[in-house]
Amino acid sequence: MMLGEREMALNVVIMAAGKGTRMRSALPKVLHKLAGRSLLSHVLGRAAELGAQRTLVVTGHGAEQVEAHVGAAATCVRQEPQLGTGHAVQQTVPALDTAHATTLILNGDVPLIEPATAAALAAACGGERLALLTVVLQDATGYGRIVREASGERVLAIVEHKDASAEQRAIREVYTGMMAAPTALLQKWVMALNNQNAQGEYYLTDIVAMAAAEGVPVVATQAADEVEVLGVNSPAQLADLERRFQRRQAEALMNAGVRLADPARFDLRGTLTCGQDVEIDVNCVFEGAVTLGDGVKIGAHCVLRNAVIAEGVVIHPFCHIDGDKDGVSVGAGSLIGPYARLRPGAQLGAEVHIGNFVEVKNSTLADGAKANHLAYLGDATVGERVNFGAGSITANYDGANKHRTVIGHDVHVGSNCVLIAPVTLGDGGTIGGGSTIAKNTPPDQLTVARAKQVSLAGWKRPQKKR
Amino acid sequence: MMLGEREMALNVVIMAAGKGTRMRSALPKVLHKLAGRSLLSHVLGRAAELGAQRTLVVTGHGAEQVEAHVGAAATCVRQEPQLGTGHAVQQTVPALDTAHATTLILNGDVPLIEPATAAALAAACGGERLALLTVVLQDATGYGRIVREASGERVLAIVEHKDASAEQRAIREVYTGMMAAPTALLQKWVMALNNQNAQGEYYLTDIVAMAAAEGVPVVATQAADEVEVLGVNSPAQLADLERRFQRRQAEALMNAGVRLADPARFDLRGTLTCGQDVEIDVNCVFEGAVTLGDGVKIGAHCVLRNAVIAEGVVIHPFCHIDGDKDGVSVGAGSLIGPYARLRPGAQLGAEVHIGNFVEVKNSTLADGAKANHLAYLGDATVGERVNFGAGSITANYDGANKHRTVIGHDVHVGSNCVLIAPVTLGDGGTIGGGSTIAKNTPPDQLTVARAKQVSLAGWKRPQKKR
Amino acid sequence: MMLGEREMALNVVIMAAGKGTRMRSALPKVLHKLAGRSLLSHVLGRAAELGAQRTLVVTGHGAEQVEAHVGAAATCVRQEPQLGTGHAVQQTVPALDTAHATTLILNGDVPLIEPATAAALAAACGGERLALLTVVLQDATGYGRIVREASGERVLAIVEHKDASAEQRAIREVYTGMMAAPTALLQKWVMALNNQNAQGEYYLTDIVAMAAAEGVPVVATQAADEVEVLGVNSPAQLADLERRFQRRQAEALMNAGVRLADPARFDLRGTLTCGQDVEIDVNCVFEGAVTLGDGVKIGAHCVLRNAVIAEGVVIHPFCHIDGDKDGVSVGAGSLIGPYARLRPGAQLGAEVHIGNFVEVKNSTLADGAKANHLAYLGDATVGERVNFGAGSITANYDGANKHRTVIGHDVHVGSNCVLIAPVTLGDGGTIGGGSTIAKNTPPDQLTVARAKQVSLAGWKRPQKKR
Repeated sequence: MMLGEREMALNVVIMAAGKGTRMRSALPKVLHKLAGRSLLSHVLGRAAELGAQRTLVVTGHGAEQVEAHVGAAATCVRQEPQLGTGHAVQQTVPALDTAHATTLILNGDVPLIEPATAAALAAACGGERLALLTVVLQDATGYGRIVREASGERVLAIVEHKDASAEQRAIREVYTGMMAAPTALLQKWVMALNNQNAQGEYYLTDIVAMAAAEGVPVVATQAADEVEVLGVNSPAQLADLERRFQRRQAEALMNAGVRLADPARFDLRGTLTCGQDVEIDVNCVFEGAVTLGDGVKIGAHCVLRNAVIAEGVVIHPFCHIDGDKDGVSVGAGSLIGPYARLRPGAQLGAEVHIGNFVEVKNSTLADGAKANHLAYLGDATVGERVNFGAGSITANYDGANKHRTVIGHDVHVGSNCVLIAPVTLGDGGTIGGGSTIAKNTPPDQLTVARAKQVSLAGWKRPQKKR
Repeated sequence: MMLGEREMALNVVIMAAGKGTRMRSALPKVLHKLAGRSLLSHVLGRAAELGAQRTLVVTGHGAEQVEAHVGAAATCVRQEPQLGTGHAVQQTVPALDTAHATTLILNGDVPLIEPATAAALAAACGGERLALLTVVLQDATGYGRIVREASGERVLAIVEHKDASAEQRAIREVYTGMMAAPTALLQKWVMALNNQNAQGEYYLTDIVAMAAAEGVPVVATQAADEVEVLGVNSPAQLADLERRFQRRQAEALMNAGVRLADPARFDLRGTLTCGQDVEIDVNCVFEGAVTLGDGVKIGAHCVLRNAVIAEGVVIHPFCHIDGDKDGVSVGAGSLIGPYARLRPGAQLGAEVHIGNFVEVKNSTLADGAKANHLAYLGDATVGERVNFGAGSITANYDGANKHRTVIGHDVHVGSNCVLIAPVTLGDGGTIGGGSTIAKNTPPDQLTVARAKQVSLAGWKRPQKKR
Repeated sequence: MMLGEREMALNVVIMAAGKGTRMRSALPKVLHKLAGRSLLSHVLGRAAELGAQRTLVVTGHGAEQVEAHVGAAATCVRQEPQLGTGHAVQQTVPALDTAHATTLILNGDVPLIEPATAAALAAACGGERLALLTVVLQDATGYGRIVREASGERVLAIVEHKDASAEQRAIREVYTGMMAAPTALLQKWVMALNNQNAQGEYYLTDIVAMAAAEGVPVVATQAADEVEVLGVNSPAQLADLERRFQRRQAEALMNAGVRLADPARFDLRGTLTCGQDVEIDVNCVFEGAVTLGDGVKIGAHCVLRNAVIAEGVVIHPFCHIDGDKDGVSVGAGSLIGPYARLRPGAQLGAEVHIGNFVEVKNSTLADGAKANHLAYLGDATVGERVNFGAGSITANYDGANKHRTVIGHDVHVGSNCVLIAPVTLGDGGTIGGGSTIAKNTPPDQLTVARAKQVSLAGWKRPQKKR
């Protein structure tokens, strides 16, 4: 993917000033998300992969938001007002580094350009030629046609649809909005643009004629796949691109051996690293960074985010595992769910069982610990082979502060217990069902807090009122 | 969509007598549901949108069920036995109002006819012409071909496939079963039909020849999209139409700015009203009337019905929100789920948090109240900033009657508590974890009902029996 | 589907020695699952449906695993090393029964061959001819072309793509890898194969030339649908075949009257038996053997396995019903979910209600029993009309052994109770909310185990620490 030395001397300009009216959103268009990342972030990623020495983002609509989003990843230049694509590039002229012979112009709303395609475009420029990225469409109606000289190699002009002859309209190769130009020439050309046209805008494409007039070769490279040059102008287009991107990710995972029950019902918004023989059932959603070890099985309808799942783990349907910033880790051979929720800081050892309607947050469970039913473990340290009973709860919050529950090895906590933190249960102890435990418990003993059971012989049941 | 005055004088006849054998159902065909409403209800909706003065539904198979379903929405006329389409319209003759010059005939199992198309059909009749609705098919095999005069304007005949010449079989324009006719002529024509044919049925299409013989112009208007004239004859066709309809709804929402993660995994069976920047993740199902405010985010795999969700609310995956008749409302900025269930009468203020495995029914939660884990709030009034602990439950049902729990502002209810209604917890009080509260509690104090914790030193754990 | 007497004398050879490198799996290719069953199991099922007297599976890569999987269903012969398809069949020669005149050769990784197609192939052989299964492809590039004599009936040769003339490459009929041959001739031919070719392998297809040279007719039958001859070589192909298979199953169910909200979001990995007017919402997954009675409605996002659901039952969204080996049964008119989990041995009577976040395992609930909220019923016998309160739990496990809870008819168990098994609650009794019940309770009385409620006037709330 890396370019040769000369071509590596690269400026990248990313056009990101557009409003995206058809998005009907308060969010600037380039901040809309594809697979969990902003469109702009995808394009910035491309610039980084290409080894760009300088990346400039042209901002305009929602500039503050876009600039905050870009942060240190690139230099932003403001285009105000927005007077066309040529005007946008004009704003970058002072910031372009002419030591970098080639300047590549990408669009902040065209996220799926392949690195190889962008690299080939930059290479076609090579600091000397004006290189246009084109694509061959089934139906080119409405697009600017690429008119080549008879030999087919060099481009003579980009002819707008409305200006095209019948013969030119038969051309199916069109301009994509992306190009690479010799930096110094680009600076000169864009500053020479005028806006003497119906829209009163400065068109970047007018530099093709300038290049031709100066005898600078104008060449074109083609995108392998139409998806690479698709822009996002509406929620429908965004959804379409999302599905194409998801399909591509699904295929890459399957080619690596991951078994997806239905590649059309799989969503990955981040990175998924899989061992051998991973099986993922229908409708699972992965976000952030997720790692699945060898032989992991993910049941239907699961959502996982920022989690590391060790080999042999089985995650039953309807699980929600979200490590957020602290992460979640699940040890080898553990059984999770259905309906288990693992929250940030859940660290599970090997062969741990977390069952239905169980929530674990900021807790460490050692090997072989189990919480199989209707339980909450928060801010707890749970020993090996502990059995945490159905309906039992660590009361970690006193209304003002969080406290820790420590449960020793081999403790058996009965059903519907409350462990009022801070509290420590000694190794091997047993807590009787229904107990509220507010003081530390000794090892190996049975501890209970239980009221006397009494039956009232004369009692009458309530009657249904009318 | 509204017609001119003359055309507005409209009878609509809806053919709804068919059995639908291939549905293999005890339900009459027209009562099967598309997007949560019966097929017939979709067609009745069209009649209403067209401003029909009189709508007649011809019933036959399952007539009682169909008539009960129609209720006051239209007048039903019974066709018994079912002797063909012409015979069906014969039953409507006494009920047609000749003051309404045009009678439009729709099919109860063709639900997606666009109002504009039906209006154009009625207008083509204009009380004077016989107007047929036609469609151009890729493959017209089996359908009745529309034979037009050389000029192309007027229809000469509908020729059944089996009777068609080779030249006629090349025609791809076919009859859809829908037409509009001058009312008085229609009455005369259908009463003049005979059943001298192989099937012994009265065919409505025979009136084309009658019109032609009388010099009444026969014209045709075309449906813009094939989907408008697709009928439902089998569960497979119903599912196909459902998906087309859902796709259409998804596209309309996206065009209005709603962001759908996957338009192919979205179901709306009712109406969905969205503010700006609403995001809906995969596999969500909406039923009844749902309103989502600005910036609402709905996580994957949620089901919502009859609910009003205010701006900025985040609903995490796996939520089930069903207001049924009483509705559910969720205040601005609330966080719901995952795995939260909001039931009828759940009224949540602003910034309320409802977490995992929590059920709320017929309860009001004031601003800032929280029930984050494994809880049940039923028939409760919950004050501002209340924290309702993990595993705590309002015991609202004494086995015969439901009672109310009132929790004051700033109350902190510990874990695994039971509040035995009717009961009131004073403002600012704290309920110790594991308490069963059967009497009102004072404000600001700690109330507990807790047995003494004891440990048994000599106790031996049970041994595994073989 | 059954063949005539002569053709029924059938050996079936299933090629199952391949590694499936592109699967990138530790599992032998033929053991990968399609719709919940191994590819090989699908093909073994075909052999059984054809009434094969002897079925031979050629194993190689992962032979031990494959042979263990085959078990008594067929005889395995080992091919070691793997020297081509001809070599594979050589291994079966001693085990082929020449009393069965026809030997059918199927591929263990081509699971969707229709019984009728396989039967037609065997019949085309009829113990006398060499019959090849072919398919007509849109694009035959890369496949072995079927060259027929001028009359079109007999096959002259299979010509590999690389050896084909331009004229032959225009042929779109290709060999599928499946054939049927006269047993004794097949034995002679495969033993006469040589490996004098670039790959040094023994090619089964070389017997076509042998047959032609001996004047044995070579005929071809065609698969009706390309899907029948699709092999699985990668996870992507497996997923593709899975979706096609699921689509086919969905269509068969719809043709039988089942209403699927979305046939593209339906998974059946086993058998689903449905009564009339069954409705299945989106994204449901069925595994093992599931029976749904008349009028059953399954909500969105449900997972069912090995369960019998009686007529009129409504299963709300997000239910997980898994009978595993013991089965689950749900009685007529019951209401289940949302978020209900029924585990093995859950046997529910009529009109039972199981609500949200409720788990039932190895328990019998008599007619009209209810457990509507956040409860666990394990190893319990529950009487008629019992109301099992929110948050209540049967403590069936003492850390070593499981014990039984018996709840009589008409018992009302309050909220957040613990029933410590073994324990019996007498008919008509009421258990006060929050009680831990460790001893049997008398009928009709109120039994409580509840600590005294006290409020502490001087108590100060904890303050938030910094």
